[in-house]
Amino acid sequence: MKLLRYGPPGAERPGLLDRSGRIRDLSGHLSDLDGAAYAAESLERLAALDPESLPLISGEQRYGCPVAKVGKFIAIGLNFSDHARESNLPIPTEPVVFTKAISCIQGPNDDVVIPRGSTKTDWEVELGVVIGKRASYVSKDAALDHVAGYVLINDVSERHYQAERGGTWDKGKGCDTFGPIGPWFVSKDEVGDVQKLGMWLDVNGKRMQTGNTATMIFDVETIVSYLSEFMTLMPGDVITTGTPPGVGMGIKPEPVYLKPGDIITLGIDKLGEQRQVCVAWEQRA
Amino acid sequence: MKLLRYGPPGAERPGLLDRSGRIRDLSGHLSDLDGAAYAAESLERLAALDPESLPLISGEQRYGCPVAKVGKFIAIGLNFSDHARESNLPIPTEPVVFTKAISCIQGPNDDVVIPRGSTKTDWEVELGVVIGKRASYVSKDAALDHVAGYVLINDVSERHYQAERGGTWDKGKGCDTFGPIGPWFVSKDEVGDVQKLGMWLDVNGKRMQTGNTATMIFDVETIVSYLSEFMTLMPGDVITTGTPPGVGMGIKPEPVYLKPGDIITLGIDKLGEQRQVCVAWEQRA
Repeated sequence: MKLLRYGPPGAERPGLLDRSGRIRDLSGHLSDLDGAAYAAESLERLAALDPESLPLISGEQRYGCPVAKVGKFIAIGLNFSDHARESNLPIPTEPVVFTKAISCIQGPNDDVVIPRGSTKTDWEVELGVVIGKRASYVSKDAALDHVAGYVLINDVSERHYQAERGGTWDKGKGCDTFGPIGPWFVSKDEVGDVQKLGMWLDVNGKRMQTGNTATMIFDVETIVSYLSEFMTLMPGDVITTGTPPGVGMGIKPEPVYLKPGDIITLGIDKLGEQRQVCVAWEQRA
Repeated sequence: MKLLRYGPPGAERPGLLDRSGRIRDLSGHLSDLDGAAYAAESLERLAALDPESLPLISGEQRYGCPVAKVGKFIAIGLNFSDHARESNLPIPTEPVVFTKAISCIQGPNDDVVIPRGSTKTDWEVELGVVIGKRASYVSKDAALDHVAGYVLINDVSERHYQAERGGTWDKGKGCDTFGPIGPWFVSKDEVGDVQKLGMWLDVNGKRMQTGNTATMIFDVETIVSYLSEFMTLMPGDVITTGTPPGVGMGIKPEPVYLKPGDIITLGIDKLGEQRQVCVAWEQRA
């Protein structure tokens, strides 16, 4: 099952993607796709609906983030050994955890704004995990019971803010528009083995990142179990799980960063695709 | 004006503390004290009410966090030079920013749970800032226009998780119960000069921390302006601004950490006091 939110920013409506790839409106069945909507019982109820019985939405639609009212937006760093190497950082022995400000969340195809004065804005295709059930000290074996499904995320990052301004990475991870999520939430059952998904990201049509969730150092169940030792995960929390090699920071001989007019396209098998136009801070909508 | 939330966890009602220190119910005027309630117009409307006209709440009451539905819980580290020294860390040239998971927020007098297996749970009395107006790239001069008022916070921290488990500080800052906030929100006008407030914290009646917001390295307006460059601050966001010397980690010759049964009391001038009993994870409610 694919769930989505469509419509103008701040006024999105809940929807479902039918087998033909058309949007069906869910407003008659729930007010929004927030944490409660991603609980197992709620997903079962939605899965039991006949898509043909839901209003068909025609015309071009903007997608919003498929999860409304995200509580926590937690991130795992350096989770692909090749990416750790390109970042000149040691391969972590435990998951590296940081936080993205929830105010950075946006739709999958909304513009990415390069922050005022920034010269090191970078891309990161990532697998996102949507929590469906409260998780505190859960074992690896039980971890996936707490996962509702998956989303595609671009973990946009400002490397100067992240690494050269003191303190933790959080400073370079939460700028407005740095969290495109979507287009759809895809339920766990529809994804199947989450550790066998191809990942890619292009800038201006040129392939920059190629990867597969098979090479994650810490897999989804390890991450969920591990995080749940440090904080209680709640329905509607989103975890972004790290990026494969090919970010701008790692390009030799010189790093390459995003500039106004650049177009980022990215995708993960089964999770859909995103497309963002980069705009200067002064040109933002 | 002092605003508060009283009642059982998850079912708090909005209230106001009258001049005699009694709770007056605000349920007739707003559903909850969330971000929208802390906007300037809303605070003006509440300030215009005659407290005598509001229902008096008698009997012992539990206080909840005075801000409902906190969006972001952002923290500044090493913001008192003496504390940076006791932590054996350099005095920062820019504010050190990290994040506390919003799931750690609780009432000011609720038990602090020592995480399972933790041996380095520590205390930190801090001044909290409540945002009342959206802030993006605001100047220092304009920063206080975006602040609704202040709260007392205990930035409870697990030092092993924070510093010895890899990654950023976030891992040791967001465990459940690590964010006691309150008892009251105190409006900006009632606080007056926020950089002249005495701070203290006792463990089992013994004074551990003594400080004053006058010795903060980065003052409130600098912090708000600075943060607003990296993320948009929203009404209902809370910023905790760093702790003065005297944390357990800094005690010589050996650090002292919290253990089950310990009682933490803390206060800041004009912002009230908190009292927490420390309990073992296995004994949590």
